[in-house]
Amino acid sequence: MSVRKLAVISFVLAIGFAGPVSAADERTQDAVETRQGLLKVVRSYFGPIVGMARKQIPFDAAVIEKNAAAVADLLPMIPDVFRMDTRGAEIETGALDGIWEDWDDFAAKAALSAEKAEALEAAAADGADDPGAVMKAFGALGASCKGCHDEYRQQD
Amino acid sequence: MSVRKLAVISFVLAIGFAGPVSAADERTQDAVETRQGLLKVVRSYFGPIVGMARKQIPFDAAVIEKNAAAVADLLPMIPDVFRMDTRGAEIETGALDGIWEDWDDFAAKAALSAEKAEALEAAAADGADDPGAVMKAFGALGASCKGCHDEYRQQD
Repeated sequence: MSVRKLAVISFVLAIGFAGPVSAADERTQDAVETRQGLLKVVRSYFGPIVGMARKQIPFDAAVIEKNAAAVADLLPMIPDVFRMDTRGAEIETGALDGIWEDWDDFAAKAALSAEKAEALEAAAADGADDPGAVMKAFGALGASCKGCHDEYRQQD
Repeated sequence: MSVRKLAVISFVLAIGFAGPVSAADERTQDAVETRQGLLKVVRSYFGPIVGMARKQIPFDAAVIEKNAAAVADLLPMIPDVFRMDTRGAEIETGALDGIWEDWDDFAAKAALSAEKAEALEAAAADGADDPGAVMKAFGALGASCKGCHDEYRQQD
């Protein structure tokens, strides 16, 4: 085995690929943190657009286009990171059981939101002079996100 | 204001867009969790490929192709989620100060890793019959990740 290969293997060990020896509840906790992590990244790209919608920061179509593209890349990952069924696990999570009871609907809602993010990206690409149209597309994305949260996320 | 617009606004409030009224240290904590979240998602896509490299699960070029594509989408987001300079903040983080001292190099290393992920995606698309070539491309991606961690991430 080459030195480089050894180095890479020790690297992947170091960053925590515990593999099948890790306890089941550790893997569950990991899965929850991963899916929450994905949504945190989505939220970080939403943030500036929300600020623009509230007129707290100036409208910037280029930023919206870039951020919507990132969100469009991220949302299709939702079914991947939610694949582990954590129903019944003793963990703190806002994920409702319906996710795994109605998996196809959950995945379809994520896909629909990804389409709305693509539509926002397209609207922003054309919309430097028409903030109203861009914000309408943002509203449609927000409504789509909300549709999924209403169904599958614990309400505060 | 339409009912739908109100609903969307209350939704974005509910999922935590506290906006500029939130305390600075809350925003710092948020930024740290977001960047850690992004890397957790990257890791989740690495996991099965590491399992294949260790021969714990069977080689599957289609899975590698899909996961490498996701990683190639995620890695360019690294500069976005690390933009907030958290040097000196009293937070638990493995992020070293060099990230913001040598920002251009940090961003370039993230971009290089994204290229290696694209190369892995391409190798996997061609490589159903040649696990060796695919795993070589995976090694190159791992080495690139390691190069960035060695420089910019606290060693355990």
